[in-house]
Amino acid sequence: MHFDIIHTDKNSSARAGTLQTDHGLIETPIFMPVGTAGTVKGVHQRELKEDIQAEIILGNTYHLFLRPGMDIIEGAGGLHKFMNWDRPILTDSGGYQVYSLSGSRKINEEGVKFQSHIDGSYHYFTPERAIDIQRSIGADIIMAFDECTPYPCDYGYAKNSMGLTHRWLKRCIDQMDKTHCAYGYQQALFPIVQGSTYKDLRRESAEVISSFDAIGNAIGGLSVGEPEEDLYEMTALVTDILPKEKPRYLMGIGTPWNLLECIALGIDMFDCVLPSRNARHGLLFTENGTINIKNKKWSTDFSPIDAGSPCYVDQHYSKAYLRHLLKSGEFLGMQIATIHNLSFYLRLMKEARARIIDGSFTEWKNKMVKQMNIRL
Amino acid sequence: MHFDIIHTDKNSSARAGTLQTDHGLIETPIFMPVGTAGTVKGVHQRELKEDIQAEIILGNTYHLFLRPGMDIIEGAGGLHKFMNWDRPILTDSGGYQVYSLSGSRKINEEGVKFQSHIDGSYHYFTPERAIDIQRSIGADIIMAFDECTPYPCDYGYAKNSMGLTHRWLKRCIDQMDKTHCAYGYQQALFPIVQGSTYKDLRRESAEVISSFDAIGNAIGGLSVGEPEEDLYEMTALVTDILPKEKPRYLMGIGTPWNLLECIALGIDMFDCVLPSRNARHGLLFTENGTINIKNKKWSTDFSPIDAGSPCYVDQHYSKAYLRHLLKSGEFLGMQIATIHNLSFYLRLMKEARARIIDGSFTEWKNKMVKQMNIRL
Repeated sequence: MHFDIIHTDKNSSARAGTLQTDHGLIETPIFMPVGTAGTVKGVHQRELKEDIQAEIILGNTYHLFLRPGMDIIEGAGGLHKFMNWDRPILTDSGGYQVYSLSGSRKINEEGVKFQSHIDGSYHYFTPERAIDIQRSIGADIIMAFDECTPYPCDYGYAKNSMGLTHRWLKRCIDQMDKTHCAYGYQQALFPIVQGSTYKDLRRESAEVISSFDAIGNAIGGLSVGEPEEDLYEMTALVTDILPKEKPRYLMGIGTPWNLLECIALGIDMFDCVLPSRNARHGLLFTENGTINIKNKKWSTDFSPIDAGSPCYVDQHYSKAYLRHLLKSGEFLGMQIATIHNLSFYLRLMKEARARIIDGSFTEWKNKMVKQMNIRL
Repeated sequence: MHFDIIHTDKNSSARAGTLQTDHGLIETPIFMPVGTAGTVKGVHQRELKEDIQAEIILGNTYHLFLRPGMDIIEGAGGLHKFMNWDRPILTDSGGYQVYSLSGSRKINEEGVKFQSHIDGSYHYFTPERAIDIQRSIGADIIMAFDECTPYPCDYGYAKNSMGLTHRWLKRCIDQMDKTHCAYGYQQALFPIVQGSTYKDLRRESAEVISSFDAIGNAIGGLSVGEPEEDLYEMTALVTDILPKEKPRYLMGIGTPWNLLECIALGIDMFDCVLPSRNARHGLLFTENGTINIKNKKWSTDFSPIDAGSPCYVDQHYSKAYLRHLLKSGEFLGMQIATIHNLSFYLRLMKEARARIIDGSFTEWKNKMVKQMNIRL
């Protein structure tokens, strides 16, 4: 796996790069659609490629481990083959879902015991097990097993938790070294900076994480309810420390304007459920603001969903039709809205990249952030 | 609108034909996917054309009238434009849904007062209104407003109801004559034979319906719970009377083997929710029988859904993957299964047509009926 920075913005920390994986090239900055249970909800793999133009997707270790389970994924020859997706996959470590979804959980130095949200069964994740599972899933990028602290989080808890995340990282790296990919391609481990919203902890964590010299680095524990200023402040602080020549992945962020601001701070990779989840509720992101397509005002707007977009759904379906589908609870409404939002995110990343390369990024970013962050 | 029979089978009443409409040619026998509320559930219009190869779809007057409502459909310039579907559309008259879905209903000579299943509001359908609404929807084929009797149905009720359906037909025809298509293309009215499972009533109804010399004729009131033998007996009896040179549409039928048997009895057009509804429950029709894809036995079957099918979903997704999606309640599972079943139905119709033309229909039909009608 190889990361090249092909251009750095003069007026910000934004960079345009390429990340070469054994499943193909990723052009950064990039957004990774979330395919929780081996599917980006409501989207065919063909649409992911052709309409959304996803270059990499994210899978959730917690969900895939519980259902269909590792026997089946291994039997298929890994998640790529199971879901028939031949481009790169990144898996989270399961840590976040263990805390946010499971019925009950018990954490100690060794690992986390948790209860399935599906059937109440008990399971045990350790750093070693999280690596083994992600190896079996066949992720191109494997995330370290960490504890993601909630917001707000008191200083003592945040500090101890960060220490645990760092010790677990060491165990993750050891387990990576002891094991190999069963499917014959390279799998890279990305460690995760934690530290809640405390500057000294974030600084310490970024320094510890940097010292491991991993292929890429991630920032976790943000977008958990903290004010937007904290998101930007922590991200800026951490990207200043993380090695410049390695890709930086900001986990679970965010709105289109969050993405542009964080690109300006030196982030290369993003994932978030926001575009797909909001789509299912009828919230559409556009260059000119966010539309709640279920509002009455769209009921007789027979213009295309997004006349300026090259995407199939934006050209072929009207706002009034999409509103009707979503108001009626029709699957197709969720499908159309999801493709719209994800293709919008991917196009936004492509344009950010082009703007970084041609030197107009900062000016464009400032205009777009203002323009997109309104309700239509 | 013009119907040509291009070949008639020697050993059965099966025929291969073409139905020319202002929205394109339909090759019969044909199956019409049901697009109740202006969408075939979970299927993009592009997929309807390219994967399913639908030549005509069905819309439901009752649903479209209630939601989005006629103002919006008229504002869009008709259903074709509203949903962006440029091939033919047939609409039912709303009669069946008024009886099967609405909260309460009151029927008399003039029409039917009913209560919306969505918001409990009261509405009134008459034969004239059912025609006006279908004109506004812009259907290429408009169905007469009838009463669909339940099963079982006592003789007296069935006889009276049939009489009402015939009198309403006269009013539908008068209303068709008094009105025109607002969108500039031809709309044809198909009357409906009723008479429950009583031979003399079915015979009488078929004779009355035939006397109107409509462009095409339909058989209603079957597949409402009666034994399969009755379905075939009534269909045979009615097709013997209905004019040979006009297309015959058997409403709401059925399984793949039902379709083949009824093609042998002289039916040209079918619609049914079965392939799409069953798909959402994981029941897949194949040439070799019906698969319940949610069964445990498919959990590690990584072979394509249907290796012998040219359809995208059948080739690109495995049985194990589809099972996982449906067991997990993922939209994509329902989408894949729906495309599978509908494309299977359409291919079956295409093959039936080719077999009628090359003279091998009856032998092939007998083999297929046996082969398909088993549980795998």
